[in-house]
Amino acid sequence: MTTTETILKRAKAAAPALAAGSSAAKDAALERIAARLLAEQADILRANAEDMEAARNALSPSMLDRLKLDPERIAGMAQGIREVRELPDPVGRVLSRVERPNGLRIEKTAVPMGVIGIIYESRPNVTSDAAALALKAGSAVVLRGGRDAYRSNAAIVTAIHHGLEDAGLPADLVGLVEDTSRDSARAMMTAVGYIDLLIPRGGAGLIRSVTEHAKVPCIQTGTGICHIYVDASADQDMALTVIENAKTSRPSVCNAEEVLLVHRDIAEAFLPKLAKRLGADRSAAGLTPVELRLDGRAAAVIDGVPAGEADFDTEFLDYILAVAVVDDTDAAIAHIARHSTGHSDAILTRCEASADAFTRRVDSAAVYVNASTRFTDGGVFGLGCEMGISTQKLHARGPMGLEELTTYKYIVRGSGQIR
Amino acid sequence: MTTTETILKRAKAAAPALAAGSSAAKDAALERIAARLLAEQADILRANAEDMEAARNALSPSMLDRLKLDPERIAGMAQGIREVRELPDPVGRVLSRVERPNGLRIEKTAVPMGVIGIIYESRPNVTSDAAALALKAGSAVVLRGGRDAYRSNAAIVTAIHHGLEDAGLPADLVGLVEDTSRDSARAMMTAVGYIDLLIPRGGAGLIRSVTEHAKVPCIQTGTGICHIYVDASADQDMALTVIENAKTSRPSVCNAEEVLLVHRDIAEAFLPKLAKRLGADRSAAGLTPVELRLDGRAAAVIDGVPAGEADFDTEFLDYILAVAVVDDTDAAIAHIARHSTGHSDAILTRCEASADAFTRRVDSAAVYVNASTRFTDGGVFGLGCEMGISTQKLHARGPMGLEELTTYKYIVRGSGQIR
Repeated sequence: MTTTETILKRAKAAAPALAAGSSAAKDAALERIAARLLAEQADILRANAEDMEAARNALSPSMLDRLKLDPERIAGMAQGIREVRELPDPVGRVLSRVERPNGLRIEKTAVPMGVIGIIYESRPNVTSDAAALALKAGSAVVLRGGRDAYRSNAAIVTAIHHGLEDAGLPADLVGLVEDTSRDSARAMMTAVGYIDLLIPRGGAGLIRSVTEHAKVPCIQTGTGICHIYVDASADQDMALTVIENAKTSRPSVCNAEEVLLVHRDIAEAFLPKLAKRLGADRSAAGLTPVELRLDGRAAAVIDGVPAGEADFDTEFLDYILAVAVVDDTDAAIAHIARHSTGHSDAILTRCEASADAFTRRVDSAAVYVNASTRFTDGGVFGLGCEMGISTQKLHARGPMGLEELTTYKYIVRGSGQIR
Repeated sequence: MTTTETILKRAKAAAPALAAGSSAAKDAALERIAARLLAEQADILRANAEDMEAARNALSPSMLDRLKLDPERIAGMAQGIREVRELPDPVGRVLSRVERPNGLRIEKTAVPMGVIGIIYESRPNVTSDAAALALKAGSAVVLRGGRDAYRSNAAIVTAIHHGLEDAGLPADLVGLVEDTSRDSARAMMTAVGYIDLLIPRGGAGLIRSVTEHAKVPCIQTGTGICHIYVDASADQDMALTVIENAKTSRPSVCNAEEVLLVHRDIAEAFLPKLAKRLGADRSAAGLTPVELRLDGRAAAVIDGVPAGEADFDTEFLDYILAVAVVDDTDAAIAHIARHSTGHSDAILTRCEASADAFTRRVDSAAVYVNASTRFTDGGVFGLGCEMGISTQKLHARGPMGLEELTTYKYIVRGSGQIR
């Protein structure tokens, strides 16, 4: 087995070859990689079948479905790489330009990070997506995927290596960590001098581990305890539609709603409609109903499961919604300040003052007025792609696109100036 | 003694009052603070005299000079605050704006960090500078200065508190940590949930401690092992002038040159001129001569102290220069990749290809062609001010001004859109 340290060293040694390359060279390599993924589909499907067989008794049906590849999904991966290729090159942008009175010319210029590390647990298509984004951003990448998908990931990375070699670039630009134990994740978190940016993509446990152990620069992603607050003045029909969408259109993702706050003045009118819309109506339509976990004030109006204190701090990722009644917009903002993970929070209101207070004072990556939290996404926000959704404030906040995967340097040209 | 935890909690509780304030309110507070610094000068000077007396036998003359305040220096601090007040407000800038086909309006908007922590060792004027920059950027600030300056810092912070109160803002917006032991620095590094950005300003020991212990988001600053490479084609007279400036104009600062690399083709002609310029010429002029620490190839040409391996990895901050002869630009770039701290590195050359290779491949915050490394500075780079010089790649690189002290959020306005 190649050690994680060796893979990191090789990536660091390979990175300058890519950083020095032109936009055209990077795009040509991405095209070769997409072609190789398609050409080596049989190998990838064979490896994936082995992963599926090994995981058959260990994973739930929905997890098995995430793991599974088929020709259509591989075509989607190749198409994803081609879409990344079509995006503008984030490297070399001149972010600002100053000429000083003494003749010094100072250009702040976007440059690659160097080596980007990614720890992920999920689907094998993340392997090709993340590699394509990092390469387009001019950086080498070291991927540490989950154990269940290892054979699939290895076959995908083999195809990527062939594509890089077809394009005359070193295969070491994309490294796959062979050790899928906790040790390798720790090794990446502490690889000072080898990893310029580490992006953990996964659940709350991974994020906690990174906070605890990481010594390399990190961007934390993906934990979303997202709130929707229904103000007294809200259009209640719109509110029902937005809440159902935010909760049920894809409950397993980080921008799904987990907590609903309702202004006390409308609680008696609105909560029964909510219970019907998310409960009986969905059951009647053959859809999964949403379990409501109610604080004391909400439970005084409708039936539901009494909420424990933890329910307002839990990312359910399921058909479960915690519901509380609050006194007003200030109380909603205060609740969100205590419980939000800073991902996406929304107010539904017809009052401009409430909307302004909410957008100004809620300290989250995305703050919505009268829309579903489900829109927090790199594509929707105009970034063209997405490496993850940052819930921290440093460097990148919210969806991260190619620009967020670069850094910058100042290039200063003179003619002998001294200070 | 108020605990560090209490000071952090108070700052976090106070921060929203400032974040919600207008530009005019912030500027008015800065003016009140400047006025209070001047009005309370006698108290500040008295406290400083006590610090000076206590440190008289413990500190070197140059350290004592850094600690000392006088009416002129306090006037300079007040003037510095007024200059910060005059800068454009970094908060509220709309960084990008997208309208989606479905009518969603998405604005990426600069917002305050929240609470900024600063650990510093140096002069008491950092106390007022850092507080002014953080407040202008809309954030509360918790300051942890050195023990030797504690009484001075406390008197300055008292004046700042009075200025904040004069302006109707909570004094807790600026906290001074009372415990000046290592414990309080550790407490700040691990204050997850209380500090949104920690900026350590100090020597290599502090930076190492932060890398080892910090769990809050940090920007590492200030360690500069800066290189100048003299290419074969360089204008040698210009090179002598630039090198003398970069090394001797202020040897104690992070953008001073520490290492000189010379192309082998000019070593025999150039090194004797260098030895004369930095040695005999300076002595004759009554200036401190520079001690040269020479690798084997340089020592074959001129006299000097033989360099140990550590000399190419040391921030001397003194009249000492490590000198090596290299084969060519590639070798210079490779040396810099191994030994630079990523702060500021320069090439002196008349060859455009060498200049391009150097600026493209040297991975430092500031990369110079034909100019002194001493220009790496927020004012020079057009930022208007400076909180420190970042040597990391995440969030801010090189001089940090007000914009680098903010983060952003996405504000999304709709009319009931769902996904």
